[in-house]
Amino acid sequence: MSAFDDDTRLEPLHDAAPGAVGGFGYAGRVQPAWNIGAHPNGGYLLALAARALQLRTPHHPDALSVTVHYLRPGLPGQPCRIDTQLLRSGRTLSTLRATLVQQGHPRLELLAAMGDLGAADAAAPPRLALPVPDMPPPEACLPRSAPAQGVGLPILQRLDVRLHPDEARPGAAGRAHLRGWIRFTDGREPDGLACLLMADASPPAVFGLLGQVGWVPTIELTVHLRRRPAPGWLLGEFGSRDLSDGRIVEDGALWDAAGRLVLQSRQLALVRKA
Amino acid sequence: MSAFDDDTRLEPLHDAAPGAVGGFGYAGRVQPAWNIGAHPNGGYLLALAARALQLRTPHHPDALSVTVHYLRPGLPGQPCRIDTQLLRSGRTLSTLRATLVQQGHPRLELLAAMGDLGAADAAAPPRLALPVPDMPPPEACLPRSAPAQGVGLPILQRLDVRLHPDEARPGAAGRAHLRGWIRFTDGREPDGLACLLMADASPPAVFGLLGQVGWVPTIELTVHLRRRPAPGWLLGEFGSRDLSDGRIVEDGALWDAAGRLVLQSRQLALVRKA
Repeated sequence: MSAFDDDTRLEPLHDAAPGAVGGFGYAGRVQPAWNIGAHPNGGYLLALAARALQLRTPHHPDALSVTVHYLRPGLPGQPCRIDTQLLRSGRTLSTLRATLVQQGHPRLELLAAMGDLGAADAAAPPRLALPVPDMPPPEACLPRSAPAQGVGLPILQRLDVRLHPDEARPGAAGRAHLRGWIRFTDGREPDGLACLLMADASPPAVFGLLGQVGWVPTIELTVHLRRRPAPGWLLGEFGSRDLSDGRIVEDGALWDAAGRLVLQSRQLALVRKA
Repeated sequence: MSAFDDDTRLEPLHDAAPGAVGGFGYAGRVQPAWNIGAHPNGGYLLALAARALQLRTPHHPDALSVTVHYLRPGLPGQPCRIDTQLLRSGRTLSTLRATLVQQGHPRLELLAAMGDLGAADAAAPPRLALPVPDMPPPEACLPRSAPAQGVGLPILQRLDVRLHPDEARPGAAGRAHLRGWIRFTDGREPDGLACLLMADASPPAVFGLLGQVGWVPTIELTVHLRRRPAPGWLLGEFGSRDLSDGRIVEDGALWDAAGRLVLQSRQLALVRKA
């Protein structure tokens, strides 16, 4: 077992979910090792909740499209319950919702189309694919740094994040743009579930434009998983050209070590400094 | 009243929603005037369901973020019921879900963060904004055409869509990219709700790359409304650099007649020809 597998382990509940979503519930714990400052990382919470979707529809383990709304901060170190509801079950797609609850309050609400990307490796090459960004190798990049970002980063015990040397210092990029390598510190290889975490485990791209911005709370994040990743580092590129009225729309993409596009992501987040 | 207002009118239901979402339900009708071929346009169904969200939280009428999953095609000319559930109510945001049901089957599932963009006009200019695309004026553009697209377009009785002359013929663009003007045929001015419709009322951008592709069913669409539009034409730009394994991720944006970014959109859709 890896830390990621341990920290997203869920047990099925056999009682009906009273008052909540109905359907099937799962019990787990929000582990504090994935915190950004005092709060659990949003990508970690997403992966934890998405594991419940995988357990619910094991024949459709991949999040072709998953949207999460962050209703309240997660509580590190506390147990959680994830209630799932199957909205539609088809041959190639299952549509589900899930609610992650702690201390009686919903924290995350998910809506997802789950499918099977297992055959995608054998498929024809993509008809269109975002180009892989220019990037020096990981050993020529700079580790993500809590002092540079101005927030404590317990999550760095779990994730090795290396930023492009031109973009690693606050405000250095001069634009809301960030490239980075990412992998687990314990050598676990990435898979579809880990990609959901890694879609939201880099500093906010606005850091390159505004400098230290503190906590940038995500309102909503949507991830489209496009294929399962090859073993090795993932390369991420994140950026925004849409920041107004204190809200930013940030786009992201991940490529695997074979240079193949693995996912696209987009989130709406609050930027208090803007 | 305009056709759009008439065709998205809802009446509150006073009975409990049996078995469904719980909470508040609304009754309406899916009007056939918004069809693409035999199916109601997805943007129209989204606007219809989002009206229920507006009725539920009138102090938060704007979809800061709304995600819709299309579970089954809508049934034109048939009544519908929209059940809503308030997930979280805050000062600046209300998070809700909604289910549009026809003939006992859920057709759409929505998850949204609703807020109030009424003060955004007075706010400072955007810190970052997508640049307005180059575009000839509407009178120099070509109307969206059913023969060119290879599908019947009843929706053109409601919407005036003018495409860039280099991109109006199937396959002419040589890439999955499309620019167009859009407005209601009856002179109704756009608002936030109309923008949700107009985010998904142009031909699929893949039309410019692959030519006639027939029906491109949307699995999931997310719209971020960034400000309320000024009166007049809306200008849309839609494109994709991510098409593989029969699924496309298409991005879109709309600008108002004052040249201001009004929304961003992204959808996952099936392309049978790819």
